[in-house]
Amino acid sequence: MTVSVTAEVNSSLNGPPADSKARVSQFLRSLQDSICQKLAVVDGGGSFQEDEWERPEGGGGRSRVMMGGDLFEQGGVNFSEVYGDHLPPSIVNQRPEVAGHRWFATGTSMVLHPRSPYIPTVHLNYRYFEAGPVWWFGGGIDLTPYYPFLEDVVHFHSTLKDACDRHSPDYYPTFKLWCDEYFYLKHRQETRGVGGIFFDYQDGMNALYQGSDAQGPAGLHSAQVGVPPQRSWDELFAFVQSCGEGFLPAYVPIAEKHRHQEYGEQERNFQLYRRGRYVEFNLVYDRGTIFGLQTNGRTESILMSLPPLVRWEYGYQPQPGTREAELYETYLKPQDWLSGITATP
Amino acid sequence: MTVSVTAEVNSSLNGPPADSKARVSQFLRSLQDSICQKLAVVDGGGSFQEDEWERPEGGGGRSRVMMGGDLFEQGGVNFSEVYGDHLPPSIVNQRPEVAGHRWFATGTSMVLHPRSPYIPTVHLNYRYFEAGPVWWFGGGIDLTPYYPFLEDVVHFHSTLKDACDRHSPDYYPTFKLWCDEYFYLKHRQETRGVGGIFFDYQDGMNALYQGSDAQGPAGLHSAQVGVPPQRSWDELFAFVQSCGEGFLPAYVPIAEKHRHQEYGEQERNFQLYRRGRYVEFNLVYDRGTIFGLQTNGRTESILMSLPPLVRWEYGYQPQPGTREAELYETYLKPQDWLSGITATP
Repeated sequence: MTVSVTAEVNSSLNGPPADSKARVSQFLRSLQDSICQKLAVVDGGGSFQEDEWERPEGGGGRSRVMMGGDLFEQGGVNFSEVYGDHLPPSIVNQRPEVAGHRWFATGTSMVLHPRSPYIPTVHLNYRYFEAGPVWWFGGGIDLTPYYPFLEDVVHFHSTLKDACDRHSPDYYPTFKLWCDEYFYLKHRQETRGVGGIFFDYQDGMNALYQGSDAQGPAGLHSAQVGVPPQRSWDELFAFVQSCGEGFLPAYVPIAEKHRHQEYGEQERNFQLYRRGRYVEFNLVYDRGTIFGLQTNGRTESILMSLPPLVRWEYGYQPQPGTREAELYETYLKPQDWLSGITATP
Repeated sequence: MTVSVTAEVNSSLNGPPADSKARVSQFLRSLQDSICQKLAVVDGGGSFQEDEWERPEGGGGRSRVMMGGDLFEQGGVNFSEVYGDHLPPSIVNQRPEVAGHRWFATGTSMVLHPRSPYIPTVHLNYRYFEAGPVWWFGGGIDLTPYYPFLEDVVHFHSTLKDACDRHSPDYYPTFKLWCDEYFYLKHRQETRGVGGIFFDYQDGMNALYQGSDAQGPAGLHSAQVGVPPQRSWDELFAFVQSCGEGFLPAYVPIAEKHRHQEYGEQERNFQLYRRGRYVEFNLVYDRGTIFGLQTNGRTESILMSLPPLVRWEYGYQPQPGTREAELYETYLKPQDWLSGITATP
């Protein structure tokens, strides 16, 4: 069986070190610390409230939430480390070789909902998974502006690209396209925002791209889709560390730049309306949310990604020629932000 | 194969009349008409805006939405009649015998979000399905109060029970329990509201109860769960008509009774918070929503069930002894409303 050969290779030549779980878990904890410390300073008014929790079936976590901050209307930064005997169907269906093994998963995830419609919502999640001889890293970061500024989007993507390029020139182009594919609302035919990077199932043996499009998204060449570039556990962990450490420089300058920009009721209403798409994505499509709910995770921690106030409006369409229309026409579709963007007429 | 025997019996002894689709469709259209006419009168200020739409793969519908009414902050009443060559996995997984047949589905569905926290949100859906020799009726109606009044809940359930009892004494007890089972948020361990009735896969041959609990919910006896009480297509259609016609007398008196009751910011905030549960249910669990999104339905019509304004609040817990706590302790768990209710201490 191909699966068990892969598993053997994984565990002998290319397996994780004996202290893999502790090392990743320690890094993700300190990532949560450094992000929360900096965000509290940036906010200036709000502070994080911490809840430690245990999962009855094994493991637990610590959730940190800022509510009613000056800059952040709500921000949640969650760390968890959980394990168990049986994996939920959402994972076993995707990776049948994990069936029957005890499993371990640790992750840090974050969603920030700023007060100002000029500051984008941002999401970060990095996670590590082991089940018997199988292991992988996953995660990413993506930006969801309401009133976008091209220079912000370019700054965000450039910073992520720099973090990726330190490890492989294939990472940014591959994981940028995977992000566009993953954070996509099929029922709206819209991307969630301007993307970023996303990856899953990174075990150093299989192809970089392991998404749902059998051919890979347009723009990936065969080296990225089909040929396994072997990478050690240590190389992948170093890559994930660079990604995690890239968050603050990618996002904080954008938040600070717009914090004093004035807005009115129209901008606020549009922000609340667009936040509805965030809810739709997280509850209908998001792999982390579904995994959490299926594994009897802590509901309040899983759903702290949902915005504090949201509007839905039947049949809403932006008026042509407005900034709201510009969001739809230019920013809610995959774009090559670092080369040149196009608009839907 | 058992399946094809059932199908043959269905189509010979117990099959639908030649004009089945037209008759059900006509009834569901007129149900939409009569409900909208009455609700516009009850509201007094708002009116329904109609959108007719076509589904590219076959069929279409007419959506009617009231936004910003006096009594109804938002109300959507949708009729649809759709058909196609291939059924989505959500149906085929549940009923493998429909695979490979052309299918037809028609339904009327409605969600009303009143402005006042003293008036419950209500949902209605009746639908009819045919695929080759297979056919069934499904649907139901359920009530979601924010500040509940026991006499309202009793009135609502009594009216539904009367409609059911005209056709079979087994209907109300069976479909009431099925409703409690179906409209349940596992990740919150809460019912959506105080229930009502719910049924699916009613073809006159199989057991009344066809829910997900293999033994049937506690309270169903074997006549309801296991023994097929044979019913003709006409009997079932008459039952669904009674249910549909029962909506206005079940709900309108409740809405009118509380329309002038004053409320403050606290009650409004709690209502917006609880509306979040409606969103969670519809996007995570609701069969109709998932069917619609999977069959490339009209997104705006499917999601017009979502409330116009919603709040989420991390870690919210009602204060003991308050009316908000009473909702959780007494009304968000299955209760025998017509005999005697119990509270969680």
